[in-house]
Amino acid sequence: MSSADQGRPRPGTPAGLAVIGGGQLARMMQQAAIGLGVRIRLLAEGPDVSAAQVIPDHVVGDYTDLDDLRTAVADAAVVTFDHEHVPPEHLAAIEAEGHACRPGPHALIYAQDKRAMRERLTELGAPCPRWAVVESPGDLADFGLPAVLKTTRGGYDGKGVWVVREPADADEAFASGRPLIAEELVDFRRELSAQVARRPSGDVVAYPVVESTQVDGVCKEVVAPAPDHPDAAQDLARRISTELDVVGMLAVELFETRDGRLLVNELAMRPHNTGHWSIDGSATSQFENHLRAVLDLPLGPTDPHHPWSVMVNILGGAVEDLAAQRSVVLAEDPGVHVHLYGKTVKAGRKVGHVTVVGDDLDETLSRARRAADLFEKGSTDG
Amino acid sequence: MSSADQGRPRPGTPAGLAVIGGGQLARMMQQAAIGLGVRIRLLAEGPDVSAAQVIPDHVVGDYTDLDDLRTAVADAAVVTFDHEHVPPEHLAAIEAEGHACRPGPHALIYAQDKRAMRERLTELGAPCPRWAVVESPGDLADFGLPAVLKTTRGGYDGKGVWVVREPADADEAFASGRPLIAEELVDFRRELSAQVARRPSGDVVAYPVVESTQVDGVCKEVVAPAPDHPDAAQDLARRISTELDVVGMLAVELFETRDGRLLVNELAMRPHNTGHWSIDGSATSQFENHLRAVLDLPLGPTDPHHPWSVMVNILGGAVEDLAAQRSVVLAEDPGVHVHLYGKTVKAGRKVGHVTVVGDDLDETLSRARRAADLFEKGSTDG
Repeated sequence: MSSADQGRPRPGTPAGLAVIGGGQLARMMQQAAIGLGVRIRLLAEGPDVSAAQVIPDHVVGDYTDLDDLRTAVADAAVVTFDHEHVPPEHLAAIEAEGHACRPGPHALIYAQDKRAMRERLTELGAPCPRWAVVESPGDLADFGLPAVLKTTRGGYDGKGVWVVREPADADEAFASGRPLIAEELVDFRRELSAQVARRPSGDVVAYPVVESTQVDGVCKEVVAPAPDHPDAAQDLARRISTELDVVGMLAVELFETRDGRLLVNELAMRPHNTGHWSIDGSATSQFENHLRAVLDLPLGPTDPHHPWSVMVNILGGAVEDLAAQRSVVLAEDPGVHVHLYGKTVKAGRKVGHVTVVGDDLDETLSRARRAADLFEKGSTDG
Repeated sequence: MSSADQGRPRPGTPAGLAVIGGGQLARMMQQAAIGLGVRIRLLAEGPDVSAAQVIPDHVVGDYTDLDDLRTAVADAAVVTFDHEHVPPEHLAAIEAEGHACRPGPHALIYAQDKRAMRERLTELGAPCPRWAVVESPGDLADFGLPAVLKTTRGGYDGKGVWVVREPADADEAFASGRPLIAEELVDFRRELSAQVARRPSGDVVAYPVVESTQVDGVCKEVVAPAPDHPDAAQDLARRISTELDVVGMLAVELFETRDGRLLVNELAMRPHNTGHWSIDGSATSQFENHLRAVLDLPLGPTDPHHPWSVMVNILGGAVEDLAAQRSVVLAEDPGVHVHLYGKTVKAGRKVGHVTVVGDDLDETLSRARRAADLFEKGSTDG
């Protein structure tokens, strides 16, 4: 018996696709890759991160280090991403060396840099909250309060975002020394997300628009489709994907204001938390369509299987042993689709999600919430 | 950057489940395991077999070697299987050493040994073709022709099976020196398969009965559910799983005779080719329910998403580069669910399958057949 010989590129079996970043998005891409017969090579942050647990052909390295990136993409013609944090200059270098980055750096910059995104969307006439570059408390006073301050780069899941109701709320943001933009604090009725997949050729498929609920800046709950959603959201996502030349999945997160306007909140150019429902609820999951898009394969249909799909994130809570809790959750409701990410539980960390599909929204919602609650708290009593 | 450190058991992360055998069934179990958050350790026949491509924690070894088996199951409390070929005495040894084999050797023997299976089913009063142990051409003459000769052990996909219409057809079988049984050559109208999943506690869920079509002893096509299928098939599968104390998936392959009787053809105690449709067509795939059953988790619902699901196997043909052909198939019909097994194409070898779901049987069937044809022949013209 010999031990397994994985790790570095295997002779004779080139990777079909390099994926940078070993989080749960890369992990769920692997489920789709297994079906399609796509061999993924992963650049993982550590030997046992979420996606490294399920992708044999991985190298451990730092995505901010160009040499590590080069090793990981080696013989892969196409490169895609679990997150938006690879430095743009490294992406340019990899492209220059003959690898197709999908999405390409010229598109990805609008998911990496919020100022660039606001400038470009404003140019395109896409509806945005009122915004401005702010370099000082004086600039912010001119912009007016309340406002939201955001670092232009590197923020996610509520990090790098400050709601400023009075001047002192901005101290931390300015003290960070990072470039900032201010945005109008939108009085929204709800948040929507419009997702599309786009091929290099320009073909686009759109998923049903969904409604998402955030708690402390972190996505908690998604209802697909969003009840009474405006078609304009889907049209806007299609248009943005085309104008920005996105390849792969694009999520356009939107505010729906109380007076019925749609405003673009964020862009993500990868599979997105608001599309996880599609694994269990749609004819083609966002992960499969992401792979199909970046590999320039024809895109799959996005029709839901059932009238309603509800996804609820499992955020790290009182329960430490999620595997043990799995049997409790499934005993309560064997029809819940469980997705665990192989991560150590930490307070508030996304460690998994559940999806429930059904014909009745209230029932579907309460089943999904109850399952996530059981995973977080251990019980739903009291 | 360090290379990946997989292979032997990782310190601190015990495998949730050991799987013996690295074929496509283990590969598809991994898709379900990723969702459930189950860590699989695989015993693979080679470093790049189908499932070893997608399961990092694998050891390469020989499933007929007890030491290799011991290394693979190491810290895994539960052991399950991609195939039925592990020697019964090794299974008994592993069980004695504290690992739960699921299915257990006392059940699995009825999927390993056709004589034991016929004796036990006869005892239970389960309907079987007329059969007898035959040790010589004289025994076979007494049994009567035409007949089917089968080796009691080690046959699969038409191997170890001889249709005997005249005495000379039996020469190869008797020359093999292997123990044989003779069975009546059943004049069947069609073949059905009834699948159930069963937990150690005895809970059972049944999948819809499907119709399967074999070509040269190899499964080619499955329609789920079988049109006008008898409920008796499902009842029989439930009963056999309980009487034989099967844990995990059980497939009961059945002949439906022209006069409407059901006769048991074969038993398989693992996910089965006749259940692949469930990945794309059912609320819970057979692979997820196999994992749930062997890990003693509550079983998932088996309802189909659509009125019809059709699965057609891709058997090795003229097309060598299946990955390249994938774009041709999806361009013709982007709604086809493609499953490639990462295997080298050889004539007649199962290298993948396609599933199509729909509302109209004829259309669903012709779409699935056309996709499989394109994967095998490169075109469907002429």
